Amino acid sequence: MSLAAPDGTGIHLPAVDSPPTAAGAPARWGHRHLLDLDVVSWPEIELVMRTTDAMREVLGRPIAKVPALRGTGVTILFYEASTRTRVSFEVAAKNLSADVVNIAAASSSVTKGESLVDTIRTVEALGADMIVMRHGTSGAPYLAAEHFAGSVLNGGDGWHAHPSQALLDLYTIRERLAGGPDLRGRKVVILGDVLHSRVARSNIWSLTAAGADLWLCGPATLLRGFERWAAASGSAPGHGRFQVTSDVTAALRDADVVMALRIQRERMAGGLLPSLREYAARFGLTLDRLALARPDALVMHPGPMNEGVEISPEVAVHPRSVITDQVTNGVAVRMALLYLLAGAAGRTKEPSGG
Amino acid sequence: MSLAAPDGTGIHLPAVDSPPTAAGAPARWGHRHLLDLDVVSWPEIELVMRTTDAMREVLGRPIAKVPALRGTGVTILFYEASTRTRVSFEVAAKNLSADVVNIAAASSSVTKGESLVDTIRTVEALGADMIVMRHGTSGAPYLAAEHFAGSVLNGGDGWHAHPSQALLDLYTIRERLAGGPDLRGRKVVILGDVLHSRVARSNIWSLTAAGADLWLCGPATLLRGFERWAAASGSAPGHGRFQVTSDVTAALRDADVVMALRIQRERMAGGLLPSLREYAARFGLTLDRLALARPDALVMHPGPMNEGVEISPEVAVHPRSVITDQVTNGVAVRMALLYLLAGAAGRTKEPSGG
Amino acid sequence: MSLAAPDGTGIHLPAVDSPPTAAGAPARWGHRHLLDLDVVSWPEIELVMRTTDAMREVLGRPIAKVPALRGTGVTILFYEASTRTRVSFEVAAKNLSADVVNIAAASSSVTKGESLVDTIRTVEALGADMIVMRHGTSGAPYLAAEHFAGSVLNGGDGWHAHPSQALLDLYTIRERLAGGPDLRGRKVVILGDVLHSRVARSNIWSLTAAGADLWLCGPATLLRGFERWAAASGSAPGHGRFQVTSDVTAALRDADVVMALRIQRERMAGGLLPSLREYAARFGLTLDRLALARPDALVMHPGPMNEGVEISPEVAVHPRSVITDQVTNGVAVRMALLYLLAGAAGRTKEPSGG
Repeated sequence: MSLAAPDGTGIHLPAVDSPPTAAGAPARWGHRHLLDLDVVSWPEIELVMRTTDAMREVLGRPIAKVPALRGTGVTILFYEASTRTRVSFEVAAKNLSADVVNIAAASSSVTKGESLVDTIRTVEALGADMIVMRHGTSGAPYLAAEHFAGSVLNGGDGWHAHPSQALLDLYTIRERLAGGPDLRGRKVVILGDVLHSRVARSNIWSLTAAGADLWLCGPATLLRGFERWAAASGSAPGHGRFQVTSDVTAALRDADVVMALRIQRERMAGGLLPSLREYAARFGLTLDRLALARPDALVMHPGPMNEGVEISPEVAVHPRSVITDQVTNGVAVRMALLYLLAGAAGRTKEPSGG
Repeated sequence: MSLAAPDGTGIHLPAVDSPPTAAGAPARWGHRHLLDLDVVSWPEIELVMRTTDAMREVLGRPIAKVPALRGTGVTILFYEASTRTRVSFEVAAKNLSADVVNIAAASSSVTKGESLVDTIRTVEALGADMIVMRHGTSGAPYLAAEHFAGSVLNGGDGWHAHPSQALLDLYTIRERLAGGPDLRGRKVVILGDVLHSRVARSNIWSLTAAGADLWLCGPATLLRGFERWAAASGSAPGHGRFQVTSDVTAALRDADVVMALRIQRERMAGGLLPSLREYAARFGLTLDRLALARPDALVMHPGPMNEGVEISPEVAVHPRSVITDQVTNGVAVRMALLYLLAGAAGRTKEPSGG
Repeated sequence: MSLAAPDGTGIHLPAVDSPPTAAGAPARWGHRHLLDLDVVSWPEIELVMRTTDAMREVLGRPIAKVPALRGTGVTILFYEASTRTRVSFEVAAKNLSADVVNIAAASSSVTKGESLVDTIRTVEALGADMIVMRHGTSGAPYLAAEHFAGSVLNGGDGWHAHPSQALLDLYTIRERLAGGPDLRGRKVVILGDVLHSRVARSNIWSLTAAGADLWLCGPATLLRGFERWAAASGSAPGHGRFQVTSDVTAALRDADVVMALRIQRERMAGGLLPSLREYAARFGLTLDRLALARPDALVMHPGPMNEGVEISPEVAVHPRSVITDQVTNGVAVRMALLYLLAGAAGRTKEPSGG
């Protein structure tokens, strides 16, 4: 299978039916929806990584457009404000020549009390083949998927999951990590408000599957419940270590990757933290704290950043910061995801179909 | 005249100059604007229906796109929130290869006190050939049409009119009605808040013109003024019966079509109803009430639904519900309307012009 | 250099390396960004005018589209509500076949406290080659330009500048002025709330550079600081006269052009005016006041208008009003600006590259 460019030149994508991997599973994308990574196998994740390589090649062209999803309707249905994720999916879908419709909840009839299911049925009847959905309630995309004949991509639901973010994080780590893309035994720290973070939850699936030595670090109030997950995960075969701590020094020491999480001001009404200032003093990713990590450690952040709170301005633009790479890779990863999901639904075009 | 597909294949549209119909009027679209159905003749409505058939064929293609409106600027200017109507027109216009611009009033300079007429002049000067407009004030699209050199399509104005909705309702009834598309003598019930409903008002024109036996049913406070319309309409030659009642049993008995209207919570400040709960108990379309209608009666709703108020969840997804068909047909009807209005303005492309 | 139409026909643009003008500067566009006109030379302004002529020819075609910016990502990042400027840039960019992304601040993550610089870095990483930016804070586009690898076009910043508006004003004056495009010695009056007007500030640069006899007129409280600018400007070689007055009769007498400015209600909390009614009585552009100007004087307004305040309804639609021409020319001027800035960045396509 290959992606034909508008001018007829094509590029080769990884074969969708590649030989079984060491783990025995075939490297074939087997899901109609992308709701979270808990049901995505490691060979499937590797297929996303390889497909993203091909999409990066497309992005490097003077005209970064291929006809793969020509005639496919992609509706971006966001019930929460977003710049980067919304635009990233929009650009990705347009690069694949899909027909994109944006629906922002604030200006839609959901303000009139329409049920989510009714909205999904309507969006389908209006011609959507794929829905990219962000919603403030955990699980909402699952409900959507039950009632939608096409594919649902979760663009973030409540505290639950943000799978495309975790995949772009993984892609960025594998690309930039000194010593190569193999994460087995490499120390990855997720630092901050883990409790409210869908980014952290999705990353836990992909990073432990990659074999990383995963540390979650933050105030104890913002780690509640993760001890149990860590304990349960420890016994999974082929998975990396996974531990939880409030000791920021222990967490950062010799880390290969440090991912700071956004302090969600708008979700912190419950008094889980004394103040942003105290958070910054105790857990903010400063140059001093970064010095505990390996000299070539990567600095990551899903954005948008509160500079001076969870990350200092100097660290945000540090030479080891790959925060901008995360954004750029996000477009390529989302092109890959749209492409693979469309392929699973028999919707992608053959090379000559451009 | 035919619609050429991007790949050169074309389809045949109904001839715009077809022979005179029984009523003597030529089946030719004669209006620059579509503001309401009161001035649209039955042969013109039939032309919309046949053109919609052709557009449905386009929608069934792998790539549902024709170049009919290439180079035509369509501005969707909505002063009220909307999902389905806004997206429906947007998809319809893009399927015809028009250049679409969205303007949502909340984020536009109308919040700065600019007059409607000034906005219309500006939109025209920015390159719009057609404006699709929704406005909270009845008659606003008429004012717009007076000052716009192109075509105005009313996407809903105050309580006054929603002509494209009435046409998609008619198309859906004709397509799905057991016994064929002829509505003469068939009993159609519009149930609910008729007073505040632009959907009801536009449907009254098209359904009586189609010869239907039209019943409006709801609380007496929400039917005020329609008795007079019904009395006046009774004498129109070739038109169906038209009556008004608060007796829901009499209205629904042996109905061929039941169209439940949305209870406009946001417009009900005036104390016209005791409560939503009481409305649901007395007039909600439940399975029990639906059993009064003919066994093959169609269930319709313009959306968005308040399930549990004007329609029960079971009826909303009942096998006889054609609510989703209404949405799908809406795209095709709006493609037909944009096409016919552009044709009246000499803007559609010849087949070879694709 | 020429612009190739999609069907292969091309048009000729002014040579980018034209012979030196009288002033000695080469007529070549030398700026990566367009932040204000203070650093743009007169030969460069004339190059914009000639390029706009070419773009007007494109706009006159049945399909007003050229492939000049195919593959170029243009992000329209507006932190303030706007209809005309936002849509004008959007239509301009699409006419040049750019890939356009709209970001409205109200629905973006800037509401989550993200810094402007972080947003700019993100927009760049998402694929933007050019950013059109409107912001409530004077100077914000300069900050953006420092951190963006592509080109920034200022679509209005605080009270500071609105360069594309000044250029479309200049183009409209030159096109419509009785007696030809040479403004040397022609009397141009900017009337109203000069203090809060970015439109006025940018027009001062271009109109004095054009050699016009420029008068600023309004209540003394709304002219503060401009006396000094006028005094400093008087000595610039090759520039026209520039004076400031609250005497509306003296200002309008024998004027060739009268540009009324919007009274920014939303910015007038500081008690600078007693009331809108008094403003209208003393400075509103009425038919009586217009009679003081030359019989063929042009009436202009940047919009949106408060009719009955700074301009009477009769004057707004007066035969000498060129307010609608300003809007139409705005699309052509912005096509020219996007084209020239992209050319300076090596991004425009050769004719055969369509």
